[in-house]
Amino acid sequence: MTDDPHPPSPPLPGLIMDYGLTLSAITRRAEALFGHRPVVSRRPDGTLHRTTYRECLARARRLSVALQRLGVKPGDRVATLCWNHHRHLEAYFAIPGIGAVLHTLNLRLHPDELAYIATHAEDRVLLVDASLVPLLERFRSRARFQRVIVVADGQDGAGIASGWLDYEALLGEADERAFRPQEPDERDAAILCYTSGTTGRPKGVLYSHRALVLHSMATAMAESFALREDDVALGVIPMFHANAWGLPFTAAFVGAGLVFPGEHPDAQTLVQLCDAERVTFSAGVPTVWLGLLEALDSAPGKYDLSRLRLVIGGAAAPESLLQGLERHGVTAETSWGMTELTPVGTIGGLPDALLELRLRNEKGLVPWDGRSMGELEIRGAYVASAYYRSDEEQDRFTEDGWFKTGDIASIDASGHLEIRDRSKDLIKSGGEWISSVALEGALMGHPAVAEAAVIAVPHPKWLERPLAAVVLRPGMHATGQEILASLKDRFPSWWLPDEVVFVEAIPRTSTGKFLKSGLRQRFGDYYVLPRAP
Amino acid sequence: MTDDPHPPSPPLPGLIMDYGLTLSAITRRAEALFGHRPVVSRRPDGTLHRTTYRECLARARRLSVALQRLGVKPGDRVATLCWNHHRHLEAYFAIPGIGAVLHTLNLRLHPDELAYIATHAEDRVLLVDASLVPLLERFRSRARFQRVIVVADGQDGAGIASGWLDYEALLGEADERAFRPQEPDERDAAILCYTSGTTGRPKGVLYSHRALVLHSMATAMAESFALREDDVALGVIPMFHANAWGLPFTAAFVGAGLVFPGEHPDAQTLVQLCDAERVTFSAGVPTVWLGLLEALDSAPGKYDLSRLRLVIGGAAAPESLLQGLERHGVTAETSWGMTELTPVGTIGGLPDALLELRLRNEKGLVPWDGRSMGELEIRGAYVASAYYRSDEEQDRFTEDGWFKTGDIASIDASGHLEIRDRSKDLIKSGGEWISSVALEGALMGHPAVAEAAVIAVPHPKWLERPLAAVVLRPGMHATGQEILASLKDRFPSWWLPDEVVFVEAIPRTSTGKFLKSGLRQRFGDYYVLPRAP
Repeated sequence: MTDDPHPPSPPLPGLIMDYGLTLSAITRRAEALFGHRPVVSRRPDGTLHRTTYRECLARARRLSVALQRLGVKPGDRVATLCWNHHRHLEAYFAIPGIGAVLHTLNLRLHPDELAYIATHAEDRVLLVDASLVPLLERFRSRARFQRVIVVADGQDGAGIASGWLDYEALLGEADERAFRPQEPDERDAAILCYTSGTTGRPKGVLYSHRALVLHSMATAMAESFALREDDVALGVIPMFHANAWGLPFTAAFVGAGLVFPGEHPDAQTLVQLCDAERVTFSAGVPTVWLGLLEALDSAPGKYDLSRLRLVIGGAAAPESLLQGLERHGVTAETSWGMTELTPVGTIGGLPDALLELRLRNEKGLVPWDGRSMGELEIRGAYVASAYYRSDEEQDRFTEDGWFKTGDIASIDASGHLEIRDRSKDLIKSGGEWISSVALEGALMGHPAVAEAAVIAVPHPKWLERPLAAVVLRPGMHATGQEILASLKDRFPSWWLPDEVVFVEAIPRTSTGKFLKSGLRQRFGDYYVLPRAP
Repeated sequence: MTDDPHPPSPPLPGLIMDYGLTLSAITRRAEALFGHRPVVSRRPDGTLHRTTYRECLARARRLSVALQRLGVKPGDRVATLCWNHHRHLEAYFAIPGIGAVLHTLNLRLHPDELAYIATHAEDRVLLVDASLVPLLERFRSRARFQRVIVVADGQDGAGIASGWLDYEALLGEADERAFRPQEPDERDAAILCYTSGTTGRPKGVLYSHRALVLHSMATAMAESFALREDDVALGVIPMFHANAWGLPFTAAFVGAGLVFPGEHPDAQTLVQLCDAERVTFSAGVPTVWLGLLEALDSAPGKYDLSRLRLVIGGAAAPESLLQGLERHGVTAETSWGMTELTPVGTIGGLPDALLELRLRNEKGLVPWDGRSMGELEIRGAYVASAYYRSDEEQDRFTEDGWFKTGDIASIDASGHLEIRDRSKDLIKSGGEWISSVALEGALMGHPAVAEAAVIAVPHPKWLERPLAAVVLRPGMHATGQEILASLKDRFPSWWLPDEVVFVEAIPRTSTGKFLKSGLRQRFGDYYVLPRAP
């Protein structure tokens, strides 16, 4: 045919139905196939509220109707300030179901930040838990909500300000038959969530319907969360935090039951719920599972959690946690993610479907040899392409279409990612990188150490050297020398912190992660100032 | 806000990367993460060819380069007439990888049909197995291939006509570095496959990249094929048959190993391959697994297939098959699908993700009560919206966007589908429907019956009545009365066939399904003609 040139063919479109990847597709599936599956919420008084997807989604339609009657239009932002419970789940479906944007406000933020975020997002309507009205009062005058809907069991009108609406009353008045589905384009926004880094203003990540559906499918794959209809999933991750790792949507997609622990869930509550509701799956940060492990250890034989499999993410999981869970027959896999990834990135070190990783340093691409470190960049079908109405940090989106995570990592020859550090937490000693995360994991394995953070501190000779900040367990004692000695066999000698400082607590961010900038501020001149011998 | 009208907001697009759902995304993932995983092909002489995804995909790029040098442009159709082996897998990736359309020709079709299909598709290039050149010669003069590439091990130039190209020589000359990925739009066509019904002309289904990727994700979900990296999948379904049920793409997506049985695989070969290659997953039609079961039964303890899980589809699976497999520790799930569905529709009765079902009869929608029957209609993200350049049967695509499957089914309250019959195979006796599939399953449970088909035959009183056509097992004997007596406890008396006719074989379609139109032609006047007493 080289000797038989012909004009290039026009592209040939496939002949496949135009079926939108929208959250409505998940809703329709859950109603058609999984209407009978349970949705359980723990009330503040410890009793359980039991409902089903069928009931929940019917109520979501009534909420949709009510919001439309209030004038909410496609693209409008409707905020929630709520704990994890079935009514929050209704909002998860009702708001994107009419093409509006669900904006989950993080109730752990400072009122100043909440005021900034609600104003920046131009939230028009707010759904707020009755128990969180006091928090709302601390920033409401600085936000511009046109309507406030108080979410309560309905029997208690107290504390509802004049002009505010009662969630249950609103649903009672709404006629489900008036529901007119608003099928948005799959690339339209469905959820807005702000991520508050340790520096700068909070930045909004605006998830499309398509991203949420593809993320749900990816995490439902056998290699990832592997969720099925016969699973019961415990929703521990706050629903105001990165779509609760997508769990509400993934569960509804496959028909897994959902159990919500409600307000302030303590470890004892979680263990009891897992046992009583025969929970088979959950996901969350290490601190939650450390508490759960302690509750299990302190009541041997009392609870059977052997059917439970966990995904542990949000921070590195200490080896001691994994081993402890294994003792109780609980399977655990580690995960890494970011709000910008919808948010799950990897499970067991491998990227989820439709995500791609690469490592870069100042010289270019870094080889996948399990040793070389570089900044992790990521692209994929559910990765943010920009922050919402923000000029800050837009340089994190590269010109060739990748997102710079700010994490320092290595990848081995078979593609398994290992996060070594946040780029700003990495220690560069004499031109070589030291991973603070690895040192912290080892330090927290010492029997006397409750918590440990390792930071880079300016050093006259090596430019930077590691310093360990350690919180001792109550009633325990150890010297810095003893603690450092326990690391000797596991790291090159130049990795070891020069000093250990003992502190009462490690400062934390609103999502419970170590706030190392606080430590750096406090100990930044530790290696340059003269000290008593 | 009802009292505060404001102009409707414009739609708010999400801020998510524009990441195409194309087969290239699967290729990139397989190369980055699963390059080391095995691809094994059985040669005609019984020896095994071993390679990896890395090598296979590198060779696919060279095939891409070679095809581009031959003048293949995006949208062009490139046909294959090949068995299941690693070179066919290379074509699966190479052809869509440059935006061209892979057209898999069904080597079991009559040369007249092949001539029609290749001409209708306007195939410009053909890849043909050396062993299938004799078949090609029977229709080549009536097709319009501009280039023919003979796929062989390369050591044997014999049988290659002048002007034809040798696959291995072509790859040898192609420079992988010259590969320029052609990223198509995700809605562009990637694969074309003709489905030959029992009536009318073969009709082309034109799969988009997006449909194939979403189908791969859906089948990789834990509730469906649940394929993982540690799986080894046996590719039994012909690769010329509905994308081999998507298995090559799903396997590459998750890194499962692939084992191809090559030409004319017999049951003995399949059992040996499963055992020796530690196969964990396969999918195929009941006849294949009936053979496998017989091979297992005839050599007790010789093979260990207990790690194997099967998906059985394409026709109803007899209960005796499922029980037999269970005896050998083989897990099996039943599936239903169609070429028009990419092709998997349901697993264990439940529709795969992004598919929706409904039942209709002449009165409208049929309730999901597990009893009421109606014609099954389906819509979803990987369902055909039309046949390729065809006016035939376009009425199977309803005005409101559903595809009429032609199957008669019931659905129970929790959404489980049960196929009762093909609409044209259904028997309507005195206004009531009788399922021929159910009767056939029961008949084939009789120890003397090898095969059975039940057809509707015109009847003077009941309009239609069932007639059973039965093939006896070699050396076995039973009367029609004895066989019918075995059904008495399991069906209403009016369901039972009035007569049993004994035949030497049930006629079959090219894909191995019963060709009931052949029986209807032969026995259509059985209940109206006078017969000897």
